[in-house]
Amino acid sequence: MLITLLTDFGAADYFVAAMKGVILSVNPEARIVDITHEIPPQDILSGAFTLSAARQTFPTETIHVAVVDPGVGSARRPLLVSAGGQFFIGPDNGLFSFIYENEADARVFHLTSEEYFRQPVSTTFHGRDVFAPVAAALSKGTRPEQLGTEIKDYVRLDNLKPRPTGKGSFEASVLHIDRFGNCITNLTSEHLPEEHLARGLRLKINGREITSFRRYFAEGGEKDAELFAIFGSAGYLEIAAFRASAAQLLNARRGQIITVTSDK
Amino acid sequence: MLITLLTDFGAADYFVAAMKGVILSVNPEARIVDITHEIPPQDILSGAFTLSAARQTFPTETIHVAVVDPGVGSARRPLLVSAGGQFFIGPDNGLFSFIYENEADARVFHLTSEEYFRQPVSTTFHGRDVFAPVAAALSKGTRPEQLGTEIKDYVRLDNLKPRPTGKGSFEASVLHIDRFGNCITNLTSEHLPEEHLARGLRLKINGREITSFRRYFAEGGEKDAELFAIFGSAGYLEIAAFRASAAQLLNARRGQIITVTSDK
Amino acid sequence: MLITLLTDFGAADYFVAAMKGVILSVNPEARIVDITHEIPPQDILSGAFTLSAARQTFPTETIHVAVVDPGVGSARRPLLVSAGGQFFIGPDNGLFSFIYENEADARVFHLTSEEYFRQPVSTTFHGRDVFAPVAAALSKGTRPEQLGTEIKDYVRLDNLKPRPTGKGSFEASVLHIDRFGNCITNLTSEHLPEEHLARGLRLKINGREITSFRRYFAEGGEKDAELFAIFGSAGYLEIAAFRASAAQLLNARRGQIITVTSDK
Repeated sequence: MLITLLTDFGAADYFVAAMKGVILSVNPEARIVDITHEIPPQDILSGAFTLSAARQTFPTETIHVAVVDPGVGSARRPLLVSAGGQFFIGPDNGLFSFIYENEADARVFHLTSEEYFRQPVSTTFHGRDVFAPVAAALSKGTRPEQLGTEIKDYVRLDNLKPRPTGKGSFEASVLHIDRFGNCITNLTSEHLPEEHLARGLRLKINGREITSFRRYFAEGGEKDAELFAIFGSAGYLEIAAFRASAAQLLNARRGQIITVTSDK
Repeated sequence: MLITLLTDFGAADYFVAAMKGVILSVNPEARIVDITHEIPPQDILSGAFTLSAARQTFPTETIHVAVVDPGVGSARRPLLVSAGGQFFIGPDNGLFSFIYENEADARVFHLTSEEYFRQPVSTTFHGRDVFAPVAAALSKGTRPEQLGTEIKDYVRLDNLKPRPTGKGSFEASVLHIDRFGNCITNLTSEHLPEEHLARGLRLKINGREITSFRRYFAEGGEKDAELFAIFGSAGYLEIAAFRASAAQLLNARRGQIITVTSDK
Repeated sequence: MLITLLTDFGAADYFVAAMKGVILSVNPEARIVDITHEIPPQDILSGAFTLSAARQTFPTETIHVAVVDPGVGSARRPLLVSAGGQFFIGPDNGLFSFIYENEADARVFHLTSEEYFRQPVSTTFHGRDVFAPVAAALSKGTRPEQLGTEIKDYVRLDNLKPRPTGKGSFEASVLHIDRFGNCITNLTSEHLPEEHLARGLRLKINGREITSFRRYFAEGGEKDAELFAIFGSAGYLEIAAFRASAAQLLNARRGQIITVTSDK
């Protein structure tokens, strides 16, 4: 009965409200939670990251509707994914790549049962006409098998993971920059186990080198604007700065390459 | 029991939350959905357009509260409109013009029953003190006739519709520019029937001419930044550009005049 | 059962949704209302003001979760405040200063019962791991005494109130600037009683003098951009301008000093 929404529609237009109206018309009991509508326009990777980070705290059976959909109106397929006890509804363009990566039980359905769509289906707004009504139907008990047919050849984004370049060294990248200017990398504790960190970590980004690794944001005696690496709340290594924006200090952008080596 | 909110209050202040607190204090069972709070400050036309587009997917009996209210504290009247099976509450300044235009059964009430207002009524914040508590009362079953007296001389915005300038030609205008830079015009299929489109469409805006009309956003083989016209999800003709902002390419603003002619 | 959220997390990241997921996982019946997530990053005073203004319309027993938390991960204490029939959960850094000021019955608890936290508690995101699950536990009936131990030495912000500088004169300051450019001061009717206003009010800010005091925003015959003072909807004296931004006209910032004198 819990339906979340993540889009790149922004907060100023009627688009998000139109989706909510459709959902509540089909299922007046649905509870709707916004994840965000501020994904940069048509930025599939950013949407994929944010969905993956947000959904971890939600209960089982939550239905996540995600619409970052540059291909709306083209032949790209509408999908329903069942994975890790939750459901994901949106376009087949890689938006669910982290879900496929992290949930071994993922089953993917091509939404073909048009009787569950809002008619007539527009060519420009499948959030309202396809994804919202299908989510509402699912929330009322319709089964995935009734909504579409299972497929295996769904789209996955490449380059989600760091590329190993030697023993304990990687070419990593910045997945996301948050409001505070923290640069979230695609490195996890899987790439940087304790013994690696104990030997010392060396990150190079935009000609700057970061060698400080911390366990706490606010350790005693720090200088403002000092750069350091820390495992963040989404489970990824982040480059941060105390009371400052690491992204500004580093002039870093999403997608920026990070060279990782460990001291011997 | 479903109450939507549309305002120009922005997301950073306490204003919207204050309205929600009032509603939930009067009716703890009310379900509140935000349409948007990012209407440009005091821009009545933008609010009117967005409300009209958003409300179409909501169920009957939905109560829409809309507050774009440059005249707050002056003599402008507070209104309740019953139209098309839904309700609309807000100031009498033209904000409901599209509703009046599209719903023949519209009945308009001047909210005069001050016992339903939050006391004392401030001079600066009728969203909290008049519109929110009246919406909550309505959601609990109070009838429009108890809340005010019916009037006929309510305010309508002029110039909502294109002005005919000849056979199949119009002076139209840009109603709204959305997050993606699409320019939503005030032209509908009523002004541009099939046979007109078949003869070829010619739009002039800011010295540029657009002659491409599409049925789908993503047709094959397109060039980025190519301008075209398309009927959008709100039912209006939009000027769009593939993977680009039409508004930027055209240097277009809301209110911009568009000259429409059809080829003979 | 009503839980509000106020943070400086912005709308673009997954942070707010992560908190909502936690709350709804613990208490699926909780009703969540956003106050705002646009508090300027780490601006405790702004968060304190907005919380204080917003909470006034909410019903008793509402649980307000407020997270503006530059000291996350340091030794600053997590708090639960019971005051004026409502509850407040967040860091011990002065964020609840206006509550302490206005509610004589305030009781403050240091949240020490870690069994109510989300495990493992991260060092960077107590909104998700401490404050959200504690709010959810409270909403299900857990008593404050079970969640922590009462303390008296909690943090209060200084300088919330105007400083008297003579008979009827004050050094006041700008607490907040709203979306419309109104400058909300820390002066209330307690500092400026009727007889004081009747003698004439004189405000100096940034070299400009304001002597016009109004009871209504839109009085007849006004000129655009005329500056005036008015008691605003949060109960504080505001400096406003008709159809213009007072903050822009005055080049005023939050924290700006205002010299207040009354004519003899």
